[in-house]
Amino acid sequence: MTASTISLTTDFGSASGYAGAVKGVLLGINPAAKIVDISHDVPPQDIAHGAFVLGSAYRFFDDTIHIAVVDPGVGTSRRALLLITPAGRFLAPDNGLLTYIVLDQAGDTAPSGPDVAFMAPVETPVPKGCAAYSITRPEYWRHPVSSTFHGRDIFAPVAAHLSLSVAPDEMGERVDSIVVLNVWPGPTNGASLDGNVIFVDGFGNLVTNLRSDRIPAGPMSIEICGERLQGISETYAEADGLVALYGSHGYLEVAERNGSAAARLQARVGDAVRVLAGT
Amino acid sequence: MTASTISLTTDFGSASGYAGAVKGVLLGINPAAKIVDISHDVPPQDIAHGAFVLGSAYRFFDDTIHIAVVDPGVGTSRRALLLITPAGRFLAPDNGLLTYIVLDQAGDTAPSGPDVAFMAPVETPVPKGCAAYSITRPEYWRHPVSSTFHGRDIFAPVAAHLSLSVAPDEMGERVDSIVVLNVWPGPTNGASLDGNVIFVDGFGNLVTNLRSDRIPAGPMSIEICGERLQGISETYAEADGLVALYGSHGYLEVAERNGSAAARLQARVGDAVRVLAGT
Amino acid sequence: MTASTISLTTDFGSASGYAGAVKGVLLGINPAAKIVDISHDVPPQDIAHGAFVLGSAYRFFDDTIHIAVVDPGVGTSRRALLLITPAGRFLAPDNGLLTYIVLDQAGDTAPSGPDVAFMAPVETPVPKGCAAYSITRPEYWRHPVSSTFHGRDIFAPVAAHLSLSVAPDEMGERVDSIVVLNVWPGPTNGASLDGNVIFVDGFGNLVTNLRSDRIPAGPMSIEICGERLQGISETYAEADGLVALYGSHGYLEVAERNGSAAARLQARVGDAVRVLAGT
Repeated sequence: MTASTISLTTDFGSASGYAGAVKGVLLGINPAAKIVDISHDVPPQDIAHGAFVLGSAYRFFDDTIHIAVVDPGVGTSRRALLLITPAGRFLAPDNGLLTYIVLDQAGDTAPSGPDVAFMAPVETPVPKGCAAYSITRPEYWRHPVSSTFHGRDIFAPVAAHLSLSVAPDEMGERVDSIVVLNVWPGPTNGASLDGNVIFVDGFGNLVTNLRSDRIPAGPMSIEICGERLQGISETYAEADGLVALYGSHGYLEVAERNGSAAARLQARVGDAVRVLAGT
Repeated sequence: MTASTISLTTDFGSASGYAGAVKGVLLGINPAAKIVDISHDVPPQDIAHGAFVLGSAYRFFDDTIHIAVVDPGVGTSRRALLLITPAGRFLAPDNGLLTYIVLDQAGDTAPSGPDVAFMAPVETPVPKGCAAYSITRPEYWRHPVSSTFHGRDIFAPVAAHLSLSVAPDEMGERVDSIVVLNVWPGPTNGASLDGNVIFVDGFGNLVTNLRSDRIPAGPMSIEICGERLQGISETYAEADGLVALYGSHGYLEVAERNGSAAARLQARVGDAVRVLAGT
Repeated sequence: MTASTISLTTDFGSASGYAGAVKGVLLGINPAAKIVDISHDVPPQDIAHGAFVLGSAYRFFDDTIHIAVVDPGVGTSRRALLLITPAGRFLAPDNGLLTYIVLDQAGDTAPSGPDVAFMAPVETPVPKGCAAYSITRPEYWRHPVSSTFHGRDIFAPVAAHLSLSVAPDEMGERVDSIVVLNVWPGPTNGASLDGNVIFVDGFGNLVTNLRSDRIPAGPMSIEICGERLQGISETYAEADGLVALYGSHGYLEVAERNGSAAARLQARVGDAVRVLAGT
């Protein structure tokens, strides 16, 4: 018995028994598993939201098996994936849920085709140093397999068997591509940088895809939803009203002190943000 | 010390400290207990919802003590129950929360009286192979016992002592009946089968009480809320719009692809569903 | 490795990855830590709510490290505190989150200045038998420290190191005051007692700051939001409609049977309640 950590990120909802069923299956196979809830309240079918939640949490785990299930295509031909990386092992439908893990491992290079819509799925190579498997071997599944609940019947038992040291290649065959969502900002354009909101957190903070290390230091202004903010703050409490800062995710964020920037700006994922050098 | 699993299904709400208090009491008595949250977001006082959540999760746990607390009658003469079954041990107020456990153990036979309203409580015999106890022995409780929080002061300490191998008959006396909610469908009527919505999940999927093994194969149509659906799909993603399928619970379900059938149909628990043979 | 219990009470929201990140940091430092979620659904920035949730749960834990993060002033000069008490160890921003712990330890004496507004922060001495530290030693933090997420980068690693038996005075220097919120009721005034709503729970029950041991027995009436209730009930189910009772927290509570007193009375934290002797 191995006391492995297994994390859960799903859109099952906290008022249903689905997450409970997954936990029961995990503990039935590995009673010593340490189950950690990341979230079960990803909005239904919101793959982009689930991808960001997982991306913002997994970096802080050592040696963990992460199960992520936001799976509108469950039971169809979408692949069930196991991705092995130096930063953890991941089980998820191949629909973009692992976007930020792939980005981190691939060095955040934008996918080749420049004409993909924001947040659209893109097939991309499995990053170097990682291995991906299509989960196809039913001997590690729970039977009968429901065509609507692979979290319980495929991902959970496979995770539990992995935690008991079953080798990944027992689970299925190697694949060399993986689906990510197009969350990359546009190219830098002279003195301005164009990006988008990629996540709205529970405080109504607007997280963008502009990473702090890509934004030159110096005076700047930020345009979003028709508002213009001057400069970068250090803390949420620094200003009254709207504030731009580099959030804990490492991205440019727009927040409102003691309030919700999302509510104030009626902002949502995909909205444009522009950083302009100068004042 | 025994590393027993103890699950929690409650309507305490995730913004209150009640579930935390229950966990503290459990760990105070058995520090090695493995506490698993099934849900704390059952809608307030919604026994039927809590019963379904527990029913859809418990089947996947081995050797677990399940605490279920949705308890509008707390402090009144309603009994506090311990139900021992081959599929787990259960602590709950005797108000119908254990409906699906009793059904599973009793072979899903409808209770005798046919004139009970849908979702009304019915006294029914404890199924064969199970044993039920009325929890009456205060020596295993936390004192003083609040008349409004038996989850913390009665169910939690009793569960913890059970997990430490105190015998059930130390907790109270055997009883031979248990309350279940009337969740049974009407009788088959020639070529049609009448049922009801028994649960609405976080996706807005409508779960009915028509079990897949009771519905003859072959062409059929499903009527619900004034809509008529043709045939049974395999996956949520198969159709556009509304779809009928056999869900992961084993019941006929009505769903909407990438949407909420509950919102679209303004459907709720109790709404009628009819399956008609033929096209 | 020590199997310490570490509890979490935050306003991170259950749809974000913040709580997950904190758990990852904790387990990275102490893989044997037993993490217990009290709540991640404290309303954003609602210190008074978070303080009550923690206060209503911590009393039932033995030998636990409690992390509480509702932290609108994160990154500013507000102190990060470690409070050691006979009833547990607490890590929180010094903004009033530990109010009920300080009250319990100080014997519930009102702070000196009588002119502080209800729920306003008050600097108060650290209670006898307790020790408080300002967390200032970065060697136990996670680096780089985000100026917007001390839960992940300061409180979590400090808690994990504490659970591994690092001494509190390694974490920072002793301080002799701590911020509490003014949650005390007004003085008794002849035959009447004036208080306020201090918490609204998930059922819509209104918890007041009038403790049962301060209210004389005998006939009484309770005025709240323009309604007058007669007498104290034992259970929620005893009356139809509104009911006053001593809740599981030990305070006078106003509830509605199978409903929400908060919704019915449009009541909120701060609303006045008056207890009048006689009928």
